[in-house]
Amino acid sequence: MKQKKFYLAEQDLPKQWYNILADMPNKPLPPLNPTTREPLSVEDLTRIFNHECAKQELDTEHKWIDIPEEVQEKYTFYRSTPLVRAYALEKALGTKAHIYFKNESVNPLGSHKVNSAIPQCYYCKQEGDTNVTTETGAGQWGAALSYAARLYGLEAAVYQVKLTMQQKPYRSMIMRTFGATVEGSPSMSTRAGKNIITRDPRHTGSLGTAISEAIELATTTPGCKYTLGSVLNHVTLHQTIIGLEAEKQMEMAGEYPDKVIACFGGGSNFGGLAFPFMRHVFDGTHPNTEFIAAEPQSCPKLTRGKFEYDFADEAGYTPLLPMYTLGHDFKPANIHAGGLRYHGAGTLVSQLIKDGHMHGVDIAQLEAFNAGLLFAQAEGIIPAPESCHAIAATIREAKKADEEGSAPVLLFCLSGHGLIDMPSYDSFISGDLQNYSLSDEDIKENLTKVPHVDIP
Amino acid sequence: MKQKKFYLAEQDLPKQWYNILADMPNKPLPPLNPTTREPLSVEDLTRIFNHECAKQELDTEHKWIDIPEEVQEKYTFYRSTPLVRAYALEKALGTKAHIYFKNESVNPLGSHKVNSAIPQCYYCKQEGDTNVTTETGAGQWGAALSYAARLYGLEAAVYQVKLTMQQKPYRSMIMRTFGATVEGSPSMSTRAGKNIITRDPRHTGSLGTAISEAIELATTTPGCKYTLGSVLNHVTLHQTIIGLEAEKQMEMAGEYPDKVIACFGGGSNFGGLAFPFMRHVFDGTHPNTEFIAAEPQSCPKLTRGKFEYDFADEAGYTPLLPMYTLGHDFKPANIHAGGLRYHGAGTLVSQLIKDGHMHGVDIAQLEAFNAGLLFAQAEGIIPAPESCHAIAATIREAKKADEEGSAPVLLFCLSGHGLIDMPSYDSFISGDLQNYSLSDEDIKENLTKVPHVDIP
Repeated sequence: MKQKKFYLAEQDLPKQWYNILADMPNKPLPPLNPTTREPLSVEDLTRIFNHECAKQELDTEHKWIDIPEEVQEKYTFYRSTPLVRAYALEKALGTKAHIYFKNESVNPLGSHKVNSAIPQCYYCKQEGDTNVTTETGAGQWGAALSYAARLYGLEAAVYQVKLTMQQKPYRSMIMRTFGATVEGSPSMSTRAGKNIITRDPRHTGSLGTAISEAIELATTTPGCKYTLGSVLNHVTLHQTIIGLEAEKQMEMAGEYPDKVIACFGGGSNFGGLAFPFMRHVFDGTHPNTEFIAAEPQSCPKLTRGKFEYDFADEAGYTPLLPMYTLGHDFKPANIHAGGLRYHGAGTLVSQLIKDGHMHGVDIAQLEAFNAGLLFAQAEGIIPAPESCHAIAATIREAKKADEEGSAPVLLFCLSGHGLIDMPSYDSFISGDLQNYSLSDEDIKENLTKVPHVDIP
Repeated sequence: MKQKKFYLAEQDLPKQWYNILADMPNKPLPPLNPTTREPLSVEDLTRIFNHECAKQELDTEHKWIDIPEEVQEKYTFYRSTPLVRAYALEKALGTKAHIYFKNESVNPLGSHKVNSAIPQCYYCKQEGDTNVTTETGAGQWGAALSYAARLYGLEAAVYQVKLTMQQKPYRSMIMRTFGATVEGSPSMSTRAGKNIITRDPRHTGSLGTAISEAIELATTTPGCKYTLGSVLNHVTLHQTIIGLEAEKQMEMAGEYPDKVIACFGGGSNFGGLAFPFMRHVFDGTHPNTEFIAAEPQSCPKLTRGKFEYDFADEAGYTPLLPMYTLGHDFKPANIHAGGLRYHGAGTLVSQLIKDGHMHGVDIAQLEAFNAGLLFAQAEGIIPAPESCHAIAATIREAKKADEEGSAPVLLFCLSGHGLIDMPSYDSFISGDLQNYSLSDEDIKENLTKVPHVDIP
């Protein structure tokens, strides 16, 4: 019987995160203050983030950053996550490709998000903060933060987009189970929220409204810090635990991936898996690895967006980041992969794509769910709608390889399970889902709204 | 850092199940034909079950039964499940007891049920059957069977209690995702269902109605076999994989359990964990292990029921089994631990309790959820409402030991996660749940309805 799952012993778990920012031959442009358009300092960032994360965000010096021992200890609650050879999926496809997946769904919260929630809360606690706040869309990040806050005795307040709170009620129940306060955004608990409700009492919220409310809470509440679940450098830094483990586990399996694939929203699970393998492109030991970010066809910032300085939020409150963007007020179609409905790509991935090291592919909603269903029926794990995009991209690569007569090693990230998203599958099976594509005019028009900072 | 999780390598997974029926010094009484009151033969059982399971059900000869290689291979999709030292729970309790749990929630279906669903479907396939059917209450068993049927290309039809289908809609969605047909019971697809609906169009179903419908489908459909997820000997046989793994894993941890604890509905996860350790009571190597079955206060067959021959189903269609029972038409209160709302205990556990080898404790609903919440906030895993009963019993033992100044090794089964049961937690946190206790008269009155077969 061939070995299917590869685990690392707890004592072999990575003790450092990989900081690709320090290792990139071509550094990304700095984040800018939106008013002065000057590069941001650690102090600027510390206004809303904890100091250690602010430092990590801009750290271009240290290639390896120690994982605090207490965080290492918390990681052992669920890590290592298994690397799995997807024999059953290979058989269902009839492919010669070797397909592996890193199963980040096997943790208490059901997605990779907790990998960054734990250190963020740890640093807040260390620095004397008592409260954390954030926004959440689909709710994976909000759930992870609620759990991590509880671990460190912090009070958590989560602003969840009102619409998704209604669509996915189980996620806010999970947050409350861990003791968090969950507010549907727009809410009456902030000035920003009240203003929105006053203008439009039936507003169902967006990530933009929720970010505004969380930032307002953080800046007006002593001892309260804002936290973010994707996009930023320090978040992806924490997520490199995924790829660092996977690298050791692929070694146990006696293989090295030819293609590394993950779904793409802001970049946290994609960067987390890809960056440790990317370092072997930099050091020349594995120069030909291909990195594929699977984004939804309805939100194609990587494949059809523009590289520009833009805001990270819809409302335009955040610093300006150099990124592939569809425009910060782009309104993605209401697909079920809520975690991928984001207008921009994190700075690190954007630069790496610009430099030709990585590339995006776009996946239509029905292709994603078809892939997810095939995977579920073969491997027994119902994937999150987000992760279905990675599976679909992997299946495309397997089929392409079979046509070409090659047998590549494919590695994808199963970022989360879909148990909280069952109504999406039910709609898919009932034939109620559709694809959403965008015209070139739609995309062009929206891009006129980015602030257009000159890029050197 | 102390090791928290213990896994077995795939090649070290058990290759045989432990058949306690062959090892028991005092054999249980045989199942009886309800009409003739004669002991049942394998042939009688084969009318509704596949032949191999029917044989296993009555096998008093073979202490070890080979796990077919193909089933072993399917087990590697998710096994071994981790044995976890619950350091965080110990810390939260401030106890000196060593608490371990066998985490059966870490598998694609989220509960231990799949351990028996896979071999049952495998044997059906081997014997040329094309269809399987079953009933399900909370839906854990129905989900597991749907997945296993898909693995072997069998068509699955699941009769789910109409009430729970409405209460836990995600579970039927999971079944449909694996391609099963799910019918709310009573349904119009069987004569039994039609009769019930004709009498009472608003009947919301029960395990009794669902069993009747599934058995009718199996007996009237060529190539269709009935399957059961608990109570019977062969089901618990398959579940001994839990305890056999746990035994090896406890060895890796360098300890042996003083007390083995699991929640109790029909006995499948309890027997599955306990029986392999019970064999060391029989062989004298660990004669003093205590075995504790945690049942709900509202359904106290072990602590307040009577040892009698009774039907396994509410309607009285099944063979008569010697069991601790509250009477086969006992109607448990509508607690959220749907999997524990069952009137009787499996034959094997009943005999072992009668002989003083095991005992039950009853846990009130609020105590169960309090324990579950404490566990979730400490260990990060939201347990199924059923599993909360095992946690509560474990916490009782830890507290008792601390009072006595002892530090026992406690091992419990985390039979499943509670992600599909989030509304239960939400009700609990909102203060909407209550306890249900029974008067002695209630219990006595219901027991008058058992058929009262003379027991030698």
